[in-house]
Amino acid sequence: MNAAGERPLSIDLNCDCGEGFGAYAMGDDAAMLDIVTSASVACGFHAGDPDIMAATFRAAKAKGVAIGAHPGYPDISGFGRRPQSFGLDQIERLIAYQLGAAQGVASYAGHNLSYVKIHGALSNLAMTDRDVARAIVRAIKSVDPRLSFLAVAGTQLEAAGLAEGLAVAREIYADRAYTDAGLLAPRSSPGAVLHDAEEIAERVLSMVLEGAIIAQSGKRIAVGIDSICVHGDHRDAVATAKTVRRRLEASGFVLAPFAAT
Amino acid sequence: MNAAGERPLSIDLNCDCGEGFGAYAMGDDAAMLDIVTSASVACGFHAGDPDIMAATFRAAKAKGVAIGAHPGYPDISGFGRRPQSFGLDQIERLIAYQLGAAQGVASYAGHNLSYVKIHGALSNLAMTDRDVARAIVRAIKSVDPRLSFLAVAGTQLEAAGLAEGLAVAREIYADRAYTDAGLLAPRSSPGAVLHDAEEIAERVLSMVLEGAIIAQSGKRIAVGIDSICVHGDHRDAVATAKTVRRRLEASGFVLAPFAAT
Amino acid sequence: MNAAGERPLSIDLNCDCGEGFGAYAMGDDAAMLDIVTSASVACGFHAGDPDIMAATFRAAKAKGVAIGAHPGYPDISGFGRRPQSFGLDQIERLIAYQLGAAQGVASYAGHNLSYVKIHGALSNLAMTDRDVARAIVRAIKSVDPRLSFLAVAGTQLEAAGLAEGLAVAREIYADRAYTDAGLLAPRSSPGAVLHDAEEIAERVLSMVLEGAIIAQSGKRIAVGIDSICVHGDHRDAVATAKTVRRRLEASGFVLAPFAAT
Amino acid sequence: MNAAGERPLSIDLNCDCGEGFGAYAMGDDAAMLDIVTSASVACGFHAGDPDIMAATFRAAKAKGVAIGAHPGYPDISGFGRRPQSFGLDQIERLIAYQLGAAQGVASYAGHNLSYVKIHGALSNLAMTDRDVARAIVRAIKSVDPRLSFLAVAGTQLEAAGLAEGLAVAREIYADRAYTDAGLLAPRSSPGAVLHDAEEIAERVLSMVLEGAIIAQSGKRIAVGIDSICVHGDHRDAVATAKTVRRRLEASGFVLAPFAAT
Repeated sequence: MNAAGERPLSIDLNCDCGEGFGAYAMGDDAAMLDIVTSASVACGFHAGDPDIMAATFRAAKAKGVAIGAHPGYPDISGFGRRPQSFGLDQIERLIAYQLGAAQGVASYAGHNLSYVKIHGALSNLAMTDRDVARAIVRAIKSVDPRLSFLAVAGTQLEAAGLAEGLAVAREIYADRAYTDAGLLAPRSSPGAVLHDAEEIAERVLSMVLEGAIIAQSGKRIAVGIDSICVHGDHRDAVATAKTVRRRLEASGFVLAPFAAT
Repeated sequence: MNAAGERPLSIDLNCDCGEGFGAYAMGDDAAMLDIVTSASVACGFHAGDPDIMAATFRAAKAKGVAIGAHPGYPDISGFGRRPQSFGLDQIERLIAYQLGAAQGVASYAGHNLSYVKIHGALSNLAMTDRDVARAIVRAIKSVDPRLSFLAVAGTQLEAAGLAEGLAVAREIYADRAYTDAGLLAPRSSPGAVLHDAEEIAERVLSMVLEGAIIAQSGKRIAVGIDSICVHGDHRDAVATAKTVRRRLEASGFVLAPFAAT
Repeated sequence: MNAAGERPLSIDLNCDCGEGFGAYAMGDDAAMLDIVTSASVACGFHAGDPDIMAATFRAAKAKGVAIGAHPGYPDISGFGRRPQSFGLDQIERLIAYQLGAAQGVASYAGHNLSYVKIHGALSNLAMTDRDVARAIVRAIKSVDPRLSFLAVAGTQLEAAGLAEGLAVAREIYADRAYTDAGLLAPRSSPGAVLHDAEEIAERVLSMVLEGAIIAQSGKRIAVGIDSICVHGDHRDAVATAKTVRRRLEASGFVLAPFAAT
Repeated sequence: MNAAGERPLSIDLNCDCGEGFGAYAMGDDAAMLDIVTSASVACGFHAGDPDIMAATFRAAKAKGVAIGAHPGYPDISGFGRRPQSFGLDQIERLIAYQLGAAQGVASYAGHNLSYVKIHGALSNLAMTDRDVARAIVRAIKSVDPRLSFLAVAGTQLEAAGLAEGLAVAREIYADRAYTDAGLLAPRSSPGAVLHDAEEIAERVLSMVLEGAIIAQSGKRIAVGIDSICVHGDHRDAVATAKTVRRRLEASGFVLAPFAAT
């Protein structure tokens, strides 16, 4: 109960983690795992490797952070951000392989995989392509139907997860601009990535309280919001994530994983 | 019951499968899956990819063939046959990742992974290196302790599996010469690979009936034998495997998987 | 001089070679190098590796076959046949890297790289995309302007090579159907790949004698023809190539590389 | 001429550069290229890619820094620091391929490759293995005998380069401890990597002035010194390199590439 006698609302804060590769680092996972409640961990196809996955799962376990598999296209050199030409059945198998691998390494590391979130160009495609979104969801169900599905709020990913009966959590992006269609503005467009921590935290809070995406134009698109995605792979990422978390807590939200750990 | 009123003995015939990569083929899996009772399927690190894994699992399912994960070093260009420099903990994670991936794709393909067999240079190392064998077995147990472990008969792999309480099946190689230490003669040594189908089948039968490895010198090394490994990746492989199977059946053996499918 | 007192016409026969990878084989290079006069050798991005490149260059040298670099997208698992998302400047650098690598290994192997031909999906794109074709040609010129450019006859590749002042040779495909636009029918369309050796040889001879592509509809598209591409990576490839060569020789053509070796 | 009327001595400062991969960064090349006189650029096998190579060559050209190819084992995930199992002939071809690729991209980028330096585990092996050192040098000569060879002072690399008639420059490592055998102490041994900038600069100056490696024990091993290797891939790397440069200049040395650019 908060001061006003209301039950505090629970919200999840998620971040991409484990995105290094071999000797290469990406982001400050140790700092981010002190802030977020769910960690989406790369599965070795666009980033990550068995050593990094195991270390990330262990660190998340030690800090009480829920873990998800974060599969993407097989493309280390492009970080999974380049569109690729795979058939629907190939996409299913790319997902099934990576989910299984993540489950194997999570078991090894002593943590429990609780959800799936799609990465990069494959996620971008699936937000608007119903067939791809369905293929992804079918693959998840075939590997483990108890996994939750962290879907970009208001997209075909959410619709596909619900249609197939997965436990769906809906996320918004803290630092990405939205179009009037409720989609992420392409990284290459002006203002696509927000940088000011206070502005980011303010917008997040508004979206969560209004239950709506706020587009660049100011337009509101009503969506369910269970989680907020903060990024860890750029300058000031840690400071921004802390600011978002503090602002949410100051407004009475309890930060907690959307899925059982 | 056979003619003499004795219960026929059961033996398994296993083969490496799914060793293609992308557009590259290796061996005649379709023909081999009509002959063997267990298929050890490459997991994408030294050979195989999600598409080939799924197709191989499906074909095995359709033909009643048991499937195992066949993990190896991450080395497509060397087919997993080059020694590598990984620490014990890295080896554990390479195994955990590949087992999980194989389980994920097997679930997707509608078959059930029943065992694990180690590939190539990593297997060669573990045959004589107790610590590496133990690391491999620890990784298997951490992912799924119900998996059987197909170990080269009489080696540290067998010892490690037994010591850690895994269900262990012991295999001999149909077409590989053995040293007096009961180990495979290196591929580069003269006579290391047998080519005559009748000679191979005759030696297999002798080893199974005697319960012993027969070394190049003629020396016998007593071992338990649950499975015979035939290869599918060279000329005459299919004909040789057929000959081995026929000879075993003609001697009263029933060919069946060592592990539940 | 032939029987009629005319000077025999010279024509080149080219084939993709060196398309294996590590332990994986593709096609029968030894047989094809006895038939063709120019070998387009994969450069390690979509197929090939330093060992295979060196062996192929040496075999070509021993048989008097001219060698070309055959660069493609960085995509071993897709054999360079999947469309990719690279910018024009990235394409330039992919080409420059592979040309240099091929020159390095050719020098090592004691042969001389005389031409460049583009592979797979990148070639398909450049046939109709003027900017991509120009980027490819710019990259070739920046590495070595003395290299010849083997371009698909009648396409943007040919136009770009001529516009930039490269020595251009024009090729037709022996076993691929053509559209009325003079382009290769997609591999997935019915009849896209011809299989009958006699029919293939007959069509090649007609195209060479008429100086025109013959489309599936029978339509003629006038083009210059300096080389005929035969494939080595499928069943009956060797027999078909032999038939093409014999038919050309029987009609008075002299088979010879289009570029100095 | 300096104050004392003596001609200032010239010395080279070299650094590994271009060691990122795709979206992954490694070190601060922009800062290091303002300090060093020679840049050893990764060739895409253990680090680097065509885009990074081209950008590094262009930046070096703009700053008057000489460029070398820095080939290593094909092992992005291990950064070329893991020992590998390649035959001498395979090592030759790995080198030839990477040198050619570097020349191709250097030509594209408008700079001229002037030298070769070997990376990581392959360099470590070749320091003491005469056959491997000879194989490397043979490969360099086969691609371009005019390339200089930057060899670790006092090792088999230096001996092989001299024996084969290459222009050899000898380097010492600014921040690595030496054994009494004049070899680099393994990175895993205590004190193997020096961290204090002043101590590093002081030791460098002593070694250059004495014409000798100074081992951890204080032992001197006389060697020729043409270049000093500073590292750019760790914390404080830039500050350390600046300190080394300043100390050398303060002592009357002129910093200049050992090879013509």
